Amino acid sequence: ICDFAVGQSRQLYGLTIQSERPSHRLMEQWHPLGVVAIISAFNFPVAVWSWNAALAAVCGDSTIWKPSEKTPLTAIAVIKIAQRVCKQTGADPAIFSLLIGDGPSVGQKLAGDSRVPLVSATGSTRMGFDVAKTVHGRLGKSILELGGNNALIVSKSADLDMAVRSIFFGSVGTAGQRCTSTRRVIVHDSVADNLREQLLGAYKSMRIGNPLDRNTLVGPLIDPGSVDNVQKSIERVKGEGGEILFGGEKLDGSEFPGGCYMRPCLANARPEFEIVKHETFGPLLYLMNYSDFDEALTMHNDVPQGLSSSIFTNDMREAEKFLSTVGSDCGIANVNAGTSGAEIGGAFGGEKQTGGGRESGSDSWKSYMRRQTNTINFSTELPLAQGITFGDDASSATA
Amino acid sequence: ICDFAVGQSRQLYGLTIQSERPSHRLMEQWHPLGVVAIISAFNFPVAVWSWNAALAAVCGDSTIWKPSEKTPLTAIAVIKIAQRVCKQTGADPAIFSLLIGDGPSVGQKLAGDSRVPLVSATGSTRMGFDVAKTVHGRLGKSILELGGNNALIVSKSADLDMAVRSIFFGSVGTAGQRCTSTRRVIVHDSVADNLREQLLGAYKSMRIGNPLDRNTLVGPLIDPGSVDNVQKSIERVKGEGGEILFGGEKLDGSEFPGGCYMRPCLANARPEFEIVKHETFGPLLYLMNYSDFDEALTMHNDVPQGLSSSIFTNDMREAEKFLSTVGSDCGIANVNAGTSGAEIGGAFGGEKQTGGGRESGSDSWKSYMRRQTNTINFSTELPLAQGITFGDDASSATA
Amino acid sequence: ICDFAVGQSRQLYGLTIQSERPSHRLMEQWHPLGVVAIISAFNFPVAVWSWNAALAAVCGDSTIWKPSEKTPLTAIAVIKIAQRVCKQTGADPAIFSLLIGDGPSVGQKLAGDSRVPLVSATGSTRMGFDVAKTVHGRLGKSILELGGNNALIVSKSADLDMAVRSIFFGSVGTAGQRCTSTRRVIVHDSVADNLREQLLGAYKSMRIGNPLDRNTLVGPLIDPGSVDNVQKSIERVKGEGGEILFGGEKLDGSEFPGGCYMRPCLANARPEFEIVKHETFGPLLYLMNYSDFDEALTMHNDVPQGLSSSIFTNDMREAEKFLSTVGSDCGIANVNAGTSGAEIGGAFGGEKQTGGGRESGSDSWKSYMRRQTNTINFSTELPLAQGITFGDDASSATA
Amino acid sequence: ICDFAVGQSRQLYGLTIQSERPSHRLMEQWHPLGVVAIISAFNFPVAVWSWNAALAAVCGDSTIWKPSEKTPLTAIAVIKIAQRVCKQTGADPAIFSLLIGDGPSVGQKLAGDSRVPLVSATGSTRMGFDVAKTVHGRLGKSILELGGNNALIVSKSADLDMAVRSIFFGSVGTAGQRCTSTRRVIVHDSVADNLREQLLGAYKSMRIGNPLDRNTLVGPLIDPGSVDNVQKSIERVKGEGGEILFGGEKLDGSEFPGGCYMRPCLANARPEFEIVKHETFGPLLYLMNYSDFDEALTMHNDVPQGLSSSIFTNDMREAEKFLSTVGSDCGIANVNAGTSGAEIGGAFGGEKQTGGGRESGSDSWKSYMRRQTNTINFSTELPLAQGITFGDDASSATA
Repeated sequence: ICDFAVGQSRQLYGLTIQSERPSHRLMEQWHPLGVVAIISAFNFPVAVWSWNAALAAVCGDSTIWKPSEKTPLTAIAVIKIAQRVCKQTGADPAIFSLLIGDGPSVGQKLAGDSRVPLVSATGSTRMGFDVAKTVHGRLGKSILELGGNNALIVSKSADLDMAVRSIFFGSVGTAGQRCTSTRRVIVHDSVADNLREQLLGAYKSMRIGNPLDRNTLVGPLIDPGSVDNVQKSIERVKGEGGEILFGGEKLDGSEFPGGCYMRPCLANARPEFEIVKHETFGPLLYLMNYSDFDEALTMHNDVPQGLSSSIFTNDMREAEKFLSTVGSDCGIANVNAGTSGAEIGGAFGGEKQTGGGRESGSDSWKSYMRRQTNTINFSTELPLAQGITFGDDASSATA
Repeated sequence: ICDFAVGQSRQLYGLTIQSERPSHRLMEQWHPLGVVAIISAFNFPVAVWSWNAALAAVCGDSTIWKPSEKTPLTAIAVIKIAQRVCKQTGADPAIFSLLIGDGPSVGQKLAGDSRVPLVSATGSTRMGFDVAKTVHGRLGKSILELGGNNALIVSKSADLDMAVRSIFFGSVGTAGQRCTSTRRVIVHDSVADNLREQLLGAYKSMRIGNPLDRNTLVGPLIDPGSVDNVQKSIERVKGEGGEILFGGEKLDGSEFPGGCYMRPCLANARPEFEIVKHETFGPLLYLMNYSDFDEALTMHNDVPQGLSSSIFTNDMREAEKFLSTVGSDCGIANVNAGTSGAEIGGAFGGEKQTGGGRESGSDSWKSYMRRQTNTINFSTELPLAQGITFGDDASSATA
Repeated sequence: ICDFAVGQSRQLYGLTIQSERPSHRLMEQWHPLGVVAIISAFNFPVAVWSWNAALAAVCGDSTIWKPSEKTPLTAIAVIKIAQRVCKQTGADPAIFSLLIGDGPSVGQKLAGDSRVPLVSATGSTRMGFDVAKTVHGRLGKSILELGGNNALIVSKSADLDMAVRSIFFGSVGTAGQRCTSTRRVIVHDSVADNLREQLLGAYKSMRIGNPLDRNTLVGPLIDPGSVDNVQKSIERVKGEGGEILFGGEKLDGSEFPGGCYMRPCLANARPEFEIVKHETFGPLLYLMNYSDFDEALTMHNDVPQGLSSSIFTNDMREAEKFLSTVGSDCGIANVNAGTSGAEIGGAFGGEKQTGGGRESGSDSWKSYMRRQTNTINFSTELPLAQGITFGDDASSATA
Repeated sequence: ICDFAVGQSRQLYGLTIQSERPSHRLMEQWHPLGVVAIISAFNFPVAVWSWNAALAAVCGDSTIWKPSEKTPLTAIAVIKIAQRVCKQTGADPAIFSLLIGDGPSVGQKLAGDSRVPLVSATGSTRMGFDVAKTVHGRLGKSILELGGNNALIVSKSADLDMAVRSIFFGSVGTAGQRCTSTRRVIVHDSVADNLREQLLGAYKSMRIGNPLDRNTLVGPLIDPGSVDNVQKSIERVKGEGGEILFGGEKLDGSEFPGGCYMRPCLANARPEFEIVKHETFGPLLYLMNYSDFDEALTMHNDVPQGLSSSIFTNDMREAEKFLSTVGSDCGIANVNAGTSGAEIGGAFGGEKQTGGGRESGSDSWKSYMRRQTNTINFSTELPLAQGITFGDDASSATA
């Protein structure tokens, strides 16, 4: 991301625009915003800061970072490195500042402070509602990266082997604690049995345990509360009529210390379940069947979140329709690539309750700057103010 | 604006981006948002709707327009025209819908309705705070064009004749009821006397009266309440120690019916006055002096609004500094062109309490659409999910 | 195109770029080139002029048009219209000038005239070689739209009905006299028989005759020489071992006056035929089979021209590979859309012996302007010329 | 430049474009060209290669470098480094190839070889004419960076101290052997005497000698032929009526070995001199006066070259006019910054006999790639080929 940002720093382009008036020039310039607050979540304790901070820095902004109160140590370590680099290169280390504390004591204060023109917040939708109301209630700006409820469609022409690997990686990787984790699989009737069997095989073979052990595939959740939360969702799946196909149980014993372990869960569900519309931040995956492709699209979009989405298909029309205006309503929509793991070259973020923010590539940098539209008149005339008559050229002038 | 929008319709460009993975393709597409609410103010009873609606239409959105409750008739007339064109061309007339009513009964409902992903609102800062809190409190999107407190700097090298005409046009045109009306003049000591005399000459010669009379320069304000409001501001100017140089009095008699007329007011003020930091929506102009250019920039930026701004100078360094990062903090910054009357090719809007929205030219259309980042894998490999090891390429992948 | 150009006129964007030096500003502006020569061919006697002239006009250039010597009348008619519009709107009618004559007497003179900075030429590759050598030999600029040898791949998963209609339209429409006419069909073995039968059915049913008759599908070629030229190519196909499946014969009699008519020809061919590598400008279509997809791509690219190309497939991997770096080497590459009939929003033109020019959409307008890179220093320092030491900042400065 | 290119590699953007047809998608992709020939000159023995090669590499092209036959050793050294890096990172070292030889034996062969789609050539205008004719005569592509005849205007409001330093740096730096060296000064009558005196002072104080000595300001020219060439130009200046104000003499003795030294020359000239219209590649600077600003612009543009240009002024109208359509006709136009030393973020190159090529920043990378316009139809309709009627939608379709 730093390499990208260095390149980006020469490519923060505004536009020069032809004026309709003789001897006039139009251009737009992008200027720094000032101080940017970064509120990040526990699951990416460093990466979220780094792409926000790197882009903000090349945009000329300084940053104040409020990491998750669950992950203060990596934040301190990284800021120390950043400040050392600043000192070596003669930059003011204060451009990378750190504030550790919980939401009420630090986060809310940053959100409400009118000296902070931009708040970039990553985390739960609940946090997002609070931050959005506070920041915009003072006419500030925000970049919000909130919850996802990411689905992956497996169509009848899908390469099932690729689909299985993507789903498995997307659902149990980092114990399902990514905003882009795969949470829902929408599979065509004709391949549903086959897919389920292959997924069950993968789930059965996975090694759970100490994340520092190279043979381990799935480690702990962030804390016991998270495990409990997933347990509650599993109960609700059952309560609404779903079927647990595999796993879901809490794990303890010496291999699984701290109450933070559980066996990832695979469940049959139906799209109308209330729980399916919620993001459960852990290793719980729903399987749902479809028979008609438009039905699959409807099921796909029928959740309040809109972050990441995928289709596995070798059918060109299905792939294109999924990417079209009537297809996925998410900010990220992939074909034959899982919901998780975007490249930094593209804009990252989502729609609906995911919050609408975009980070990383494309023109995401514009969120970190203010745009200024300039008209330069180098004539000796004032074409708009036509003499004393004030005859305004209504066809070309805005307010 | 319609011609512009038609051209724009072929130029709603997303990006194709080189992927770092073999046989992968990255692109972004822009899709319509759906229904856009347009809340407009009395002072541009049609224009604000037209550029919002034209852009929204080419972006594939339909619009619901809530005009000012003070100007329902032009709204009805224009919508009738739009719907007739729709019928002639086979489009559904519902894409240009109209809802007439006041803020509480219509505006707040539109702002709070989660089926309306975007609310584009033009009006007072007070209205903006409400709309922003409501729309973003449900994680909706907004385009806000709120109050301005627009200043014009006259430097010692300014072409005074051009400056006088721009200030006069900007302050009394449409009786000072534009969001881009000139409200503050910041003039260099060495030319202040000369400028004031010329301005007084212009103010003294203006004809006030029936706006349908071609010889009239200044017509009525929108209603008696507006006149009272300006009167109160004039009292506050006096109370804080300012001096009324010209005008300010209410006008009545048969020539000035309805209690809506007043003589435009020119006042000496100082930047620290509280009233100077407020937008008074009428023909009240403050003159303030400076001696040092950096002081002028500080005075210029020391208000909570950030819409439009101008400098009149023939000094290249002053002009450039005014446009630079340390210069004007407004969304619009002009050189030798007044604060009022932008071209549609540029983005229109402002910073700080002006709300941050942008309309019309440049890439303003992006606000009316949702961005979708697509990764298309046409290989038979899944480069990110490296086998069962889940070794994520942390350097290139985001969450 | 005029609507498009009017929109484009506000969107001739250069860039503003962040400078690495304090109090410096970088931007690029696009300025008009001056006089543009347009050399057009008989087959689009008006359209080629119109998109060149419309773009040139909004770019601030004037144009001198040399139409094909075979189509002077439409040129005169259109220029009269353009000049009437100019007079009505107060523009100088000379911005749309016309010069009628043949290549040696007019075209070569325009190509060689150093007062004409840009020559936009559409026509044969032979003409293109001459123009390119002349224009660039004086360091002028060119936009070349030369011959195509456009192929359409029909893969095993293609929608055959759509493919047949596209091929038929692409090969016999305007009697095969478009630069984007379909000239080669590369079909998978498994569907080759079926496709050939359907094509033969279509060829057999077409009505040839007077182009003013609404029931006529195929009209005359431009002149008897063109018919002879196609006849020669048909003889060469036979000589190299190809098989004529349908048509090819000259037509005469009262229905087919002037020696300009022939029956469109469908032939079996093999990619190694010499004649297949040449563009025959008339209704002659080659059918060639493939068994392996990579072989089809090789056959596709193994001609010196590079204008338009298509694949008909419902296989997402084939479609994407066709569009990828290792796929079609043409300037236009379509999926499930024929070789003929591009939208004006995209850039139109081709690679290799097609000449490399681009017209119409995207940033094609840049060819009609000159770019100027500006550095504006508004400081009192000269950061690069570091004192008397001339220590050049080699890392950031170019020559 | 490598840092820039790495950032650029994620930012090689094509466009996605809204289609006018339902269930169609338009995009453009940029693909590598293949092999790029780089022909570079002696004066930037490494830099020209590096920015061409770095951009070509991130664009996916391989390069064959023909350095000046006068500077083979640095080329060999640099290629060795590049190839070592390739081996370390697993890239094929052949992507950075080197061919050493003179123009006829290597350069002309590269220019004429149809397997080399792009030739990027930096050097004299004479070389450029040859390369352009050869490359374009085979319909290849070129990037030409040829001679400049760069002028600097000093207006009456200029900061003379800055102007003197820029002129001095621009004219004697690297002994006047840059394509962007300042060759002509156009000065307003009112400041001409002052400027001349200050320049003479600088010229008199400069130290000429061994370039490895840190106190040396001006080193040798590249070879004795270059010195002779400058001598001839000086004679022509005198012959046409110019006056030598300082220097010009050949230097010899032990301090000035090899016949490569001369004292930089300052001369009075008039714009109509033939020699002033030629680029003399060495330390020879012309001073010319003007009284009217438009006259200065005419003098400025009245040479066949169009690379770099500057104005020193504090007058905003002069600065803007110089940058406008009626101002400098060069590819580079600066205000209060010398003709030499551009930032890599902007596009570098010039107009007229400078060849029209652009390298380095902005969208210069496009020259190293081929554009492909794609239409993807994912419907089951063929909207253009309207049934058997072939009714072409003439308003929206190109050829």
